[in-house]
Amino acid sequence: MENLRLILASSSPRRKELLEKLGLPFQVRQPPKTAELPLSSGKDFLRELSQVAVRKALSVANSTENEVILSADTIVEIDGRLLGKPVSPMDALKMLQQLRGKWHQVHTAVCVYHPDQNILKTHVETTRVKMGNLSDALLNWYVETGEPMDKAGAYAIQGYGALLIEKVEGCFFNVVGLPLYQVYQMLTSVAPTLLLESQSISPSGGKRLTR
Amino acid sequence: MENLRLILASSSPRRKELLEKLGLPFQVRQPPKTAELPLSSGKDFLRELSQVAVRKALSVANSTENEVILSADTIVEIDGRLLGKPVSPMDALKMLQQLRGKWHQVHTAVCVYHPDQNILKTHVETTRVKMGNLSDALLNWYVETGEPMDKAGAYAIQGYGALLIEKVEGCFFNVVGLPLYQVYQMLTSVAPTLLLESQSISPSGGKRLTR
Repeated sequence: MENLRLILASSSPRRKELLEKLGLPFQVRQPPKTAELPLSSGKDFLRELSQVAVRKALSVANSTENEVILSADTIVEIDGRLLGKPVSPMDALKMLQQLRGKWHQVHTAVCVYHPDQNILKTHVETTRVKMGNLSDALLNWYVETGEPMDKAGAYAIQGYGALLIEKVEGCFFNVVGLPLYQVYQMLTSVAPTLLLESQSISPSGGKRLTR
Repeated sequence: MENLRLILASSSPRRKELLEKLGLPFQVRQPPKTAELPLSSGKDFLRELSQVAVRKALSVANSTENEVILSADTIVEIDGRLLGKPVSPMDALKMLQQLRGKWHQVHTAVCVYHPDQNILKTHVETTRVKMGNLSDALLNWYVETGEPMDKAGAYAIQGYGALLIEKVEGCFFNVVGLPLYQVYQMLTSVAPTLLLESQSISPSGGKRLTR
């Protein structure tokens, strides 16, 4: 039987970088532009978020291949309102003004899909994030770096945005876009052979990973 | 008067990378090898940690220059015991076995020193970290990646170590080696002109940062 392969269903360079931290080989397969999550804040928005992740995974599945597909979608929530990506620098500034001095939540829905085994698992990971009570001047500077423009909630915690964030509670990498610990647990559960083969884990200890 | 300059008193490439996230120009000046923190766990170890940071800052100060010096030192604590850098792969494995499945604390002492103004501030930032309850096989694999060997507590949360860490409470970057939010606050307090000049913050908004 052909070796199981891991597929990341994402067009996000950040998710690719994050997944590389697991030390597993994988391929990126870009899902077709799916319907954007409507910015309504009904109580079912976390289910909607999961559905977006599931659609991404299903959309890249190839039934003739022995593969496991990973997909994710991230949203920022504050006081029951959802924040997507800003549409303009002014919109970014408004989002940041809304977030400063307060806690908010970052939710990432993850889907792991193993078509051959007919297994599909989803999970929503939530991290609480506290942004500092920052001046308009600093927020303006941040908006003008250009960094907020393609980020949900208008900041990148792993970039210059690091200086905006006072503390987090939960998985840090979830805020970047992929909850790595949880992803690893899901892959362990759905496709243990993937990890055994790729990381060469054996009871007597691993083989040296080439890097 | 000559422009104020920021000096990072550190030989750690990780701290240099972290400080770059603030978008400020700075120079690295390597402190002489200071006395290692003794791995005793007296109740004053946080004061000792601060003293190490202060010694680093003082050791690179040049009284003829108009500069602000930043230094830091990081230690991992679990159940009242302190963990430094492992001395061997076996030592690394033992540290990781001690940490798995439990919460521990990462403390970083930060010192900001402005010789011209005779200002010296210190702060200890603490982040709580929960490592997953991982198998020996996975810990062995991680040790064999080589990553743990130069890290306090035998892991790098920003590297492959990401998959070991379930969640954190506090500043994530503190775990990497420099609590960026706090560092920015300290620099704002000690040397506001440094930030005004470098980031071109003005009440009407910033100038575009070149990058």
